[in-house]
Amino acid sequence: MDRNPRKIRAAPARPRSHGFRMTSSTQTRPAQTDALLAPNINTLWSRALIDELARCGLRDICISPGSRSTPLVVQAFEHPDIRDISIVDERSAAFFALGLAKATGRPVALICTSGTAAANYFPAVCEASEADIPLIILSADRPADLHDCGGSQTMDQHKLFGDRIRWFHGFAQPEATASKLTYLRSIACRAFTHAKSGPVHLNIPFRKPLEPIEVPASSPDFVPTELAKTAPVATMGRPDGRPYLQISTGLSAPDSATISALLGRLKTTKRPMILAGADERGAYYRDALRDFAENIGAPIFAEPTSAMRHWNERGPNILSAGDLLFSSPPYTAYSPDETPDLIIRTGRAPLLWALQKWLRNLDGVEQIVVGPTLDLNDPEHFAAQQISCDERNFFEALNARLADGSQTISGSPRWVDTHRQRDTVAADTLSTQLLDITQLNSASIWDTLGQELPEGAGIFVSNSMSTRHLDTYMCRANATLDVHFNRGLNGIDGIIATGLGLAMGRQYEAPNDAAPTVIVIGDVALRHDLSALLLAAEIGVEATVLVVDNAGGAIFDYLPITKFEKVHERHFTTAPPLSVEAMLPGAITRLEANTSEALKEALNESFGTPGLQVIHVKIDPEFDKQTTDALRKRVGAAIASH
Amino acid sequence: MDRNPRKIRAAPARPRSHGFRMTSSTQTRPAQTDALLAPNINTLWSRALIDELARCGLRDICISPGSRSTPLVVQAFEHPDIRDISIVDERSAAFFALGLAKATGRPVALICTSGTAAANYFPAVCEASEADIPLIILSADRPADLHDCGGSQTMDQHKLFGDRIRWFHGFAQPEATASKLTYLRSIACRAFTHAKSGPVHLNIPFRKPLEPIEVPASSPDFVPTELAKTAPVATMGRPDGRPYLQISTGLSAPDSATISALLGRLKTTKRPMILAGADERGAYYRDALRDFAENIGAPIFAEPTSAMRHWNERGPNILSAGDLLFSSPPYTAYSPDETPDLIIRTGRAPLLWALQKWLRNLDGVEQIVVGPTLDLNDPEHFAAQQISCDERNFFEALNARLADGSQTISGSPRWVDTHRQRDTVAADTLSTQLLDITQLNSASIWDTLGQELPEGAGIFVSNSMSTRHLDTYMCRANATLDVHFNRGLNGIDGIIATGLGLAMGRQYEAPNDAAPTVIVIGDVALRHDLSALLLAAEIGVEATVLVVDNAGGAIFDYLPITKFEKVHERHFTTAPPLSVEAMLPGAITRLEANTSEALKEALNESFGTPGLQVIHVKIDPEFDKQTTDALRKRVGAAIASH
Repeated sequence: MDRNPRKIRAAPARPRSHGFRMTSSTQTRPAQTDALLAPNINTLWSRALIDELARCGLRDICISPGSRSTPLVVQAFEHPDIRDISIVDERSAAFFALGLAKATGRPVALICTSGTAAANYFPAVCEASEADIPLIILSADRPADLHDCGGSQTMDQHKLFGDRIRWFHGFAQPEATASKLTYLRSIACRAFTHAKSGPVHLNIPFRKPLEPIEVPASSPDFVPTELAKTAPVATMGRPDGRPYLQISTGLSAPDSATISALLGRLKTTKRPMILAGADERGAYYRDALRDFAENIGAPIFAEPTSAMRHWNERGPNILSAGDLLFSSPPYTAYSPDETPDLIIRTGRAPLLWALQKWLRNLDGVEQIVVGPTLDLNDPEHFAAQQISCDERNFFEALNARLADGSQTISGSPRWVDTHRQRDTVAADTLSTQLLDITQLNSASIWDTLGQELPEGAGIFVSNSMSTRHLDTYMCRANATLDVHFNRGLNGIDGIIATGLGLAMGRQYEAPNDAAPTVIVIGDVALRHDLSALLLAAEIGVEATVLVVDNAGGAIFDYLPITKFEKVHERHFTTAPPLSVEAMLPGAITRLEANTSEALKEALNESFGTPGLQVIHVKIDPEFDKQTTDALRKRVGAAIASH
Repeated sequence: MDRNPRKIRAAPARPRSHGFRMTSSTQTRPAQTDALLAPNINTLWSRALIDELARCGLRDICISPGSRSTPLVVQAFEHPDIRDISIVDERSAAFFALGLAKATGRPVALICTSGTAAANYFPAVCEASEADIPLIILSADRPADLHDCGGSQTMDQHKLFGDRIRWFHGFAQPEATASKLTYLRSIACRAFTHAKSGPVHLNIPFRKPLEPIEVPASSPDFVPTELAKTAPVATMGRPDGRPYLQISTGLSAPDSATISALLGRLKTTKRPMILAGADERGAYYRDALRDFAENIGAPIFAEPTSAMRHWNERGPNILSAGDLLFSSPPYTAYSPDETPDLIIRTGRAPLLWALQKWLRNLDGVEQIVVGPTLDLNDPEHFAAQQISCDERNFFEALNARLADGSQTISGSPRWVDTHRQRDTVAADTLSTQLLDITQLNSASIWDTLGQELPEGAGIFVSNSMSTRHLDTYMCRANATLDVHFNRGLNGIDGIIATGLGLAMGRQYEAPNDAAPTVIVIGDVALRHDLSALLLAAEIGVEATVLVVDNAGGAIFDYLPITKFEKVHERHFTTAPPLSVEAMLPGAITRLEANTSEALKEALNESFGTPGLQVIHVKIDPEFDKQTTDALRKRVGAAIASH
């Protein structure tokens, strides 16, 4: 199934090539002499572009088939440092690249042909833009002289993604001159750097011939043989494997006035609280933030996707419940000594409805929002102060000042302890209650996952109810987990493809002992991205897909539209009239689980089996809502009576 | 499966409602008094918008689930003239709408929620833009005060599709005032009119409450009860069911100087030729063009998607072969008395490689390109004259002048006869040769289709090889067929969804006796749009999908990349490593056919069976290329020796 395991599975990437290969394997240039630098300009051009991106650190390119992109495809295939992954559907390719980039932290490139192909990237580009995930789109194009005259598969691809991208460049016509090649290499390095903060788009026109076939010396596409001698760096890159243009980007450091002012304020703060929201880059500052919380005596309510909750080194201040606490009586009562007097927030704005509601009623409690840019994650407009600064630099600076002993902390240990005790009660009560319920429900699914996922396991969780249930019901994971979801725009599109990209990236990062990756998804999102399931077999991904089948989008049951039965049934239950069994492709292995025990077994069977397995869990939506409502009430009562 | 057959199947749409309903069914407004115009502003606003679009002529809305779009969804569901079609995946919804609009000739609307949802429309929007297909995108949005602050599922949707659309309008905040409602109605009418030439996008912000629930009189979302009396037209629309703003758009008529000059030129033209390219609106002028060809003694080489070839009233001048003729020796010899001295072209630029090549070598033969706009379909830059004018007006004006007897025609009848005889030889030779080949091949598949498709049958043909084979090998259809493909950008995406939309539209247009619709597709395009197959069962479409399975994109076998074996195999054969059997969802009925006889049987079985059937035809790519190459040679030889 995997037609070139040498390349696909290779991880980590092989050692970087030093210098440019003067000859290539005979397979791509059958009739070529060694003296020829490249059989034609398109080959030279594409080789320099791919080579330069690889020198910058690119390792993965997802390729969708097409003719116009042939020069790029051949070079992606040829380059020894590049893993070339073939994915027919560009929409899946882009979401897969998104997941891959989430797992590896490196930009992932996409190659497609001209026409509608690149437009299929748009949903994943929007998500990557909002979530700051690095993607490099390399769209092949027809040359300018085939535009605006009805050419086949031709449309204006310049700025196709509008302002959804960090940077766009439309390349000039390829030419075998030193000045054009240094231009190409310089742009490639800059694109790679821009991509570190989100998607970039390079549009690359090619005229025929697109294949690496030799052209006569009289052809305008001929590459002069002396070019390698007259301009070795332009043609072959820097001799020591460095990028053509090295770019350093600084990280913002906090100004001391801001630090001092905040420390001064903390002197009189008795009940500080930290809310750590979703952050795909959260791992970078979590140590500093945990230490800061311990230094000032603040509890951290950490969303599962903040990378702080399911973390073995999270320490005592990071709590494991979220929604269960904020919907419980001690919090909803807003008694003065229960109410924080300062809130510091990182990451995305709170997702949980109970937390949002709780925050809305904290009239006058000032909130400080810390983030790396001037983007402000504050849809409720709570913030009194925005600190735009690299978070790690910021919290490390605070910790350094707190460690020098000049600062006294006013918060009492009891403040953190209270939350911590309630957190324990919430988790314990949930677990105990679940022992009595044999029929699977949203809570027991996540509780089981929390128990069964081994150290380092990956979770990719779909939007809508799944993310909310993960937060509410997975209190008990005692392993460090790698939790992700498409939080930029919370779409229900591309979930399977993103999850499989994440799984593949995790395999690349730990080729010999990657812990399993589980994609948790509802039946509607599964229907949306059904065909991406085939990717697992096509390119060899190891993953478990846990389908929580509640016969339609249960999220609408929590919204007022449920009162309007007919239109609700037609457009909002979104129940696919086809069962999961009926919609699954024939090649997909489906395991069914109806109890927690069966789910445990299925998970472990899947973890021990190569390839992709779908674990299908059917949930009765009415029973589920009743059960979890009752659970939450009992947990709330237990917290209240503590 | 079809949860509201009353609405989905209703075709033609029920009589237009006259006036605005003061009351609604209790299901959407359970606690409402008759005196209330609408339970809240969002309901009033959405009702006026949907109502106004319906008055303009809108009948079909494809709806993808979401919360923010609730006000629109409820009104689409409620409106008696609107067929509301629920499609989970927005990409499929947009391609389905594209097909539906092709079949009905009317704009089709799309409703989606905020976030990545609308981005999934982009591929179909690009295709609709290039092919001038009417779509109206209604994207729900969060209000301005939830933008630029990290709100969930929120991004800037203004001009999301760049210049791919004919018109964009971002609506103001909904308000229950006469001036805002007349603004809304006027914009709706203008959007509908703009949509006649391609996609338009209306972005519509809503704040909560999104459902049609009553709000107290103190709420800013309350609708004053007296509004219906003070501003009846603004609130309820024009009393007689007319659109609020009636818009007339003229069709360009030719100027008499152009007509006279062309007629003058035709006096000395001995070998005029007409090339009718693909044109989704071709039916509008085909009578006039056919008559013109007969008047001036010109053969018409008509692409199958010009709506002129498979047409019972095509007359003697429209030929049934294309590629077979232009690749045959009499044409490739370019002898002076074989070469046209004037070429008139309509529709899209020629698709066929043989025709393109032949045209390239007609040095100095002037070409006149006729089309409705200043867009020029002429990627080879052959044109010496562009006539931008409504084609029907143009050819009718020419015919009128030719009919008055003042014009003498210089072309000899022999000129047309020669082509016609060769055309007959081509078709006859192909048929005869095929009798001897039992193993199915591209030629026999299309020949069989040509024989089996009944009068009025629809074909939606995929891009890449399928369209080329349709042209080359389906000479023998003697029925009027309704042939379509996504010619705007020739993508391999969305083929199944577009084809099913076409089939559904054809059912709507002829609810009691729609002839069958066949979607012809290769295995790669099937893989690209696999999940759209489920649509047929989900919303009740009758169709046959003929999968021509050549184990990967055979088009690349015709391109030089085939010489580079390893990269060719990895990225260009695009063979899905999964068989068609393995990728098909469990619910899909698959019929296999290996001979022409079996294909005939399977086609007729499918035509007589409700729902969707996949007919799976496996082609050996090597045998197919050898066989069809040999066939073409024999046809060429027969034409040459005629």
